[in-house]
Amino acid sequence: MDLSQQIKTCIDGKREHYTTLLQRMVQQPSTVGNEQGVQTIVAEKLHELDLEVDVWEPDYQTLSQNPFFNSTRKSFKGSPNVVGVLPGSGGGHSIMLNGHIDVVPAGDLDPWEDDPFSGKVKDGKLFGRGATDMKGGNLALIIALETIKEMNLTLKGDIIFCSVIEEESGGSGTLSAIEKGYKADVALIPEPSQMKIFPKQQGSNWFRLKVKGISAHGGTRYEGVSAIDKGVLVYQTLLELEKKRNDRITDPLYADNPIPIPLNVGSFKGGYFPSAVPDHVEIEGRYGIAPGETIEEARQEFEDTLANLAEKDPWFQKHPVEVEWFGLRLPPGDCPLNHAFMDVLKATYTSIKQEEPVIAGSTWGTDGGLLTQAGDIPSVIFGPGTTSMAHFANEYIELDKIFETAEIITHAIIEWCNTNK
Amino acid sequence: MDLSQQIKTCIDGKREHYTTLLQRMVQQPSTVGNEQGVQTIVAEKLHELDLEVDVWEPDYQTLSQNPFFNSTRKSFKGSPNVVGVLPGSGGGHSIMLNGHIDVVPAGDLDPWEDDPFSGKVKDGKLFGRGATDMKGGNLALIIALETIKEMNLTLKGDIIFCSVIEEESGGSGTLSAIEKGYKADVALIPEPSQMKIFPKQQGSNWFRLKVKGISAHGGTRYEGVSAIDKGVLVYQTLLELEKKRNDRITDPLYADNPIPIPLNVGSFKGGYFPSAVPDHVEIEGRYGIAPGETIEEARQEFEDTLANLAEKDPWFQKHPVEVEWFGLRLPPGDCPLNHAFMDVLKATYTSIKQEEPVIAGSTWGTDGGLLTQAGDIPSVIFGPGTTSMAHFANEYIELDKIFETAEIITHAIIEWCNTNK
Repeated sequence: MDLSQQIKTCIDGKREHYTTLLQRMVQQPSTVGNEQGVQTIVAEKLHELDLEVDVWEPDYQTLSQNPFFNSTRKSFKGSPNVVGVLPGSGGGHSIMLNGHIDVVPAGDLDPWEDDPFSGKVKDGKLFGRGATDMKGGNLALIIALETIKEMNLTLKGDIIFCSVIEEESGGSGTLSAIEKGYKADVALIPEPSQMKIFPKQQGSNWFRLKVKGISAHGGTRYEGVSAIDKGVLVYQTLLELEKKRNDRITDPLYADNPIPIPLNVGSFKGGYFPSAVPDHVEIEGRYGIAPGETIEEARQEFEDTLANLAEKDPWFQKHPVEVEWFGLRLPPGDCPLNHAFMDVLKATYTSIKQEEPVIAGSTWGTDGGLLTQAGDIPSVIFGPGTTSMAHFANEYIELDKIFETAEIITHAIIEWCNTNK
Repeated sequence: MDLSQQIKTCIDGKREHYTTLLQRMVQQPSTVGNEQGVQTIVAEKLHELDLEVDVWEPDYQTLSQNPFFNSTRKSFKGSPNVVGVLPGSGGGHSIMLNGHIDVVPAGDLDPWEDDPFSGKVKDGKLFGRGATDMKGGNLALIIALETIKEMNLTLKGDIIFCSVIEEESGGSGTLSAIEKGYKADVALIPEPSQMKIFPKQQGSNWFRLKVKGISAHGGTRYEGVSAIDKGVLVYQTLLELEKKRNDRITDPLYADNPIPIPLNVGSFKGGYFPSAVPDHVEIEGRYGIAPGETIEEARQEFEDTLANLAEKDPWFQKHPVEVEWFGLRLPPGDCPLNHAFMDVLKATYTSIKQEEPVIAGSTWGTDGGLLTQAGDIPSVIFGPGTTSMAHFANEYIELDKIFETAEIITHAIIEWCNTNK
């Protein structure tokens, strides 16, 4: 029996066991601040697999000094990270398996057909908030670890499995793992990519702009200056900036993407009374950041563009647009296309699936950005879930996809960790 | 002693009396629903002058059937109108003297140096909400009535003095007076015109537009349709409509006015989340209506323009802009420039002030619109207050301006009402 066959047999024999484990994980509503329950299940599992298990609550005082820190929390009490290490015998490549355990809130309950944390299985799908984003992916990693243990393989390189908190709220969990010194030659993150391979991941940063005008009575509106007029000019300038930034992107990975790094204006709000000239507009949005670009470089280009508005309209000379960066801030993630792990992953995928994998760039940010930029670990996304399921009601994951992904990952890890450095 | 001198002597002798009366009127905070107190003072004064006094609360059931009715109130209990009639001996022109007794709320108290309803007199100015808009104007009318009585003049035409409620909230007070049958050959409204004569008054109507888009994740914004994008197009179309409508206005009265009938977009609000493509935008504003135009005609042009948006962008074919007319709705007011009363008023002004009056169009709506369109009474604005004081903190009126306006009005009424029809 060849390696692939052995892996498949191992996994197939424990499908029910894994399904139950995922149900238990999904039934823990691990929204921000409520991660303890599911992390306990994960840690128990890692102990059972005889890994070196590390459980800790990130220290706010230390972590908040990190320039990549981005959280509104003031404490991580009750929100532990869990890491399990399977040390290699030496000489091989190491890999970090990273998956976030936090989930976004269930949101409006009306559209949910079942309890959002039911973990119900129906027609080969497991339902619940976090099933696709990304506890199903995390399960694929656990399956890989368990399969390697079951097969009694001792690999040369280390495997570091990180079950992290806070990905949905700024990445403090992964940042804390990096600060603790966890490091590897490559990172694999099974975010919901529909089994596509994303060696590049879009970063993003939220912005808030304040545009000023001068109020006046609507009947003599020419006595005022409409902040909406000025805000429209700002809006058009942002669209031009988006075009300029995207025109620069020639990476064939993005060939099929009409706007690889979108600048999305999410809201435009100004004015207070029908009969008054509006004296302020607030614009909020999400600024896409290209793989290979730092957040600082991207912000600088954005701020410079708005500072140059006075060339279009002298109003902005004395009333410059105020720029605030807030909320979401995810650096872009990146693994060079010619990285050796990419070859391993692609070859494994092709041999198991009997077709070439789709290689693309993700349109969303992940903890891979922090791993790439703060941890200096090239990061690849490859997971069983579906993007369009994430954050929506009736979220589910197809169980078969998890097992298939687990097969490929297990195989790729064995290949990678047994290759000499 | 000529007539002007007699009038001036009468008024000057009672300056203190009138100042105290205005103080008492301003000290009554006659915001919507609280008009009873000041109307009692007005009615007492009219009785004292031996006028035929009519005090009534408008009947909601009847009034709300009127196509010009525009109020959110369901009852006018406790909010009386007061009318005082000084009948003429017959054969002369009649005049309606119309002034609203309601005031807008004091608003934020911080910027007020005194109690907003203090009626404090300092340096020839009387302070308080409603002093300029328009109890000072109403006082000028009362002075005119009292002066005519004091001079023991019996005029040929009737004088109908209306102290009305609800001007600031849609004009129900004046509409009720029209429905009760009060009618004259001309109406004079001493709204704060800074003693300019406004034979034409801009009307206005508030609008609310709903513009649709399709939501999507900001990272793949090209999968959605930004309602802000579409809203900007709507906004630009409104500006074009404003230009088209104003280009048509060739009346020399508006020669100095850069936008005689502005279309003011007061607010533009859309979107809900930085990382989401906005699926709706709501635009509110004030649509200026030209003297001589009906509200229906103006609305039709507005709605047709938005209905034609599909020619610019096929999106609007299936997602037309929803138009709602709400809140303020004031028809434009109008007195023909060649109306005989205009000649009387201009000549009186010139003889007393020894300078030509400024004749212009008001940039705001008044009850003159209802008098013109619902009552068929040509209406002229001429008052002592200052537009820029109205609705602001520390509102005041210069007492001298009231007395000067009263002199001109008294003289003009005598001339007008003694002219045979």
